[in-house]
Amino acid sequence: MDWDELWLDVNIATLDPAQTGAYGAIKDGAVAIKDGKIAWIGPRQQLPEIDPFALPIQRGNGGWLTPGLVDCHTHLLFGGSRAREFELRLEGASYETIARQGGGILSTVAATRAADEEQLFHHGRKRLNALLREGVTTVEIKSGYGLELATEQRQLTVARELGRVHPIEVHTTFLGAHALPTEFQHDGDGYIDDLVQRQLPTLAQAGLVDAVDAFCENIGFSPEQTERLFQAAQALGLPVKLHAEQLSNQGGSALAARYQALSVDHLEWLDEAGVKALADSGTVAVLLPGAFYCLRETRLPPIELLRQYGVPMAVASDYNPGSSPLCSSLLMLNMACTQFRLTPEEALTGLTRHGAQALGQGHRIGHLAVGMDADMVLWDIESPAELAWQYGTGPCLAVIKAGAQVHRG
Amino acid sequence: MDWDELWLDVNIATLDPAQTGAYGAIKDGAVAIKDGKIAWIGPRQQLPEIDPFALPIQRGNGGWLTPGLVDCHTHLLFGGSRAREFELRLEGASYETIARQGGGILSTVAATRAADEEQLFHHGRKRLNALLREGVTTVEIKSGYGLELATEQRQLTVARELGRVHPIEVHTTFLGAHALPTEFQHDGDGYIDDLVQRQLPTLAQAGLVDAVDAFCENIGFSPEQTERLFQAAQALGLPVKLHAEQLSNQGGSALAARYQALSVDHLEWLDEAGVKALADSGTVAVLLPGAFYCLRETRLPPIELLRQYGVPMAVASDYNPGSSPLCSSLLMLNMACTQFRLTPEEALTGLTRHGAQALGQGHRIGHLAVGMDADMVLWDIESPAELAWQYGTGPCLAVIKAGAQVHRG
Ligand SMILES: [Zn+2]
Ligand SMILES: [Zn+2]
Repeated sequence: MDWDELWLDVNIATLDPAQTGAYGAIKDGAVAIKDGKIAWIGPRQQLPEIDPFALPIQRGNGGWLTPGLVDCHTHLLFGGSRAREFELRLEGASYETIARQGGGILSTVAATRAADEEQLFHHGRKRLNALLREGVTTVEIKSGYGLELATEQRQLTVARELGRVHPIEVHTTFLGAHALPTEFQHDGDGYIDDLVQRQLPTLAQAGLVDAVDAFCENIGFSPEQTERLFQAAQALGLPVKLHAEQLSNQGGSALAARYQALSVDHLEWLDEAGVKALADSGTVAVLLPGAFYCLRETRLPPIELLRQYGVPMAVASDYNPGSSPLCSSLLMLNMACTQFRLTPEEALTGLTRHGAQALGQGHRIGHLAVGMDADMVLWDIESPAELAWQYGTGPCLAVIKAGAQVHRG
Repeated sequence: MDWDELWLDVNIATLDPAQTGAYGAIKDGAVAIKDGKIAWIGPRQQLPEIDPFALPIQRGNGGWLTPGLVDCHTHLLFGGSRAREFELRLEGASYETIARQGGGILSTVAATRAADEEQLFHHGRKRLNALLREGVTTVEIKSGYGLELATEQRQLTVARELGRVHPIEVHTTFLGAHALPTEFQHDGDGYIDDLVQRQLPTLAQAGLVDAVDAFCENIGFSPEQTERLFQAAQALGLPVKLHAEQLSNQGGSALAARYQALSVDHLEWLDEAGVKALADSGTVAVLLPGAFYCLRETRLPPIELLRQYGVPMAVASDYNPGSSPLCSSLLMLNMACTQFRLTPEEALTGLTRHGAQALGQGHRIGHLAVGMDADMVLWDIESPAELAWQYGTGPCLAVIKAGAQVHRG
């Protein structure tokens, strides 16, 4: 066997739909890696005879291997902090006081515009390091704290650079349509013009955009404005996704489905027609329990309908300084189960296979099978459900990205 | 100055009530340590002249020092896992199915009875390590998964041993009155007899008990049963505390106050009479947002009343395998603010000074002042509120216990 490395003494939660049984589990399994990909995977007993001195053998001491975690929705590049705003609110400050002190998303926009590449990179790397220690091997990073070409470009440039130098794989999303900048106050259509005619083409041409996103909401952009952006993305050959149905039902999910969106995200107000549309278009429903928790929402996404129609459900952190300052993908497993009543298997699938699908990468990452990238995490647990049940014990023993060990716990 | 060590380049959230201003903060401060205690603390500019070569100088690079975190309510020594039960519930299994598979607290009792000292110690140390990495320097550990003398003794013996060999300071609590063991089914009074006449005296004589606790609830022990236990504790000179008013109002807090309890814990159903009683007795109200979150409770503890009457509020993890499998004291800062609407300063005080007070240790740990133990954490943050606002970035740079650096982040 011409393999680079072999893992033994492990149980494997493959999350491979071709494997029968919960988690696609293989008890006492083996995984062989060649050129960063999985060359063989299966029960130890079926492993072809090998010369044990011919290749490095890694031993998992009876722990579990899962796919590397995929956090398909983050806003992790931002300037400044919202700690003071968080504190003011809890001290009972009025909306006016907070606005006067520059609270809300526009305060993060101001801080991000003021941050240079080095600062954004510095904080971004620290945050990626924190995610890596918990088993994350792939993240999406959105822009959207510039709301003007130069800063959006800086955010996306830093995201790309992080993807080059950090072990975590980074997918970039252009979220110019995150909020209305003060320069375009009361002129949403004018801002969409700017996005469609100037920002998006420039950034796309610079190779900085893997997907295009918008915040379609009564306090965000209208379905019509969103559609103009989607058309521009389509013309450039870029896939779309959407922040949809978080605070109200705007029909954003159905709109996104018409554009074969990779994903629609949040979805607390999604209705059955929207669910059907997602099922037909093969769009992933991304659930964001961190935002639900931080905003103390009470209306749950329509999990049972999503199950009925077989819509793949991803789980992501939505890590951002305002509505989800939780820099932990792993915590989302517990939150998805505790708050949204997902099963541990659904939650883990959501943070691996379906997360990868939400990034258009389901063909190469997110589950463990021959030919897939060897993105794997070794955990000090006795069953995969433990990852969702308990949080905080630091169960991550090793992280492997494309066959290379990039973290040891 | 005959000091052992000096910290410079730090801001200090002393949490010292003698310091005016939020967090008792000292910007650009200095702390000198001698024999494990704080020998000098104040603004850098007021530091007496010293010979900089005469003693080791630690530099905080502009980070913040806070007191070491004190988690005054945990059940962190348990055998087994409840992952399967967690999963079964989410898969829609009936109560009977779960009971048949041995779910609930009695399954943890069975697993803990089956665990030997080495196993309990092994898992306990891992959990303490996780807490230490987040800045915890003192924890309380309850027994209560034995419900029979031998196992209660084993739990408390291991807790003591961990306190001896681990950098984290451990306070033990005897919680024999946690649930009714099958041996005493339908005979709560008989079990209280066993606790009062046999278990408690034996364990107290062995020096294993720092405090005595009970679960006073309609599904737990009655106020009358609780009082019998308190009387036995009082006769042995041991302080008491109580799981009270979690699921109903049993008047447990007022009862505990009559026995000068160190703390009453949970308190979602606490009424104004109970709050008054706590204020009069100087009992700490321990808030447990992790259990509130895991159980998806909706009724909040009476925070505003507790504020009005000046009852000190502590915050703790309640880390346990059933109702709060969250091995993170730091996460509780965010949960206390997000769910209970505590201010960041209240939450941080709750996890330091008031936590220490709930353990009867407020005179030596929990805030930073001359003469106090040098239990300190250095954080990579720009304001103390950041610790409550954001979770997961791993901001802990160093942990100092009694003057010794015991962890570096
Ligand atoms: Zn988002
Ligand atoms: Zn408890």
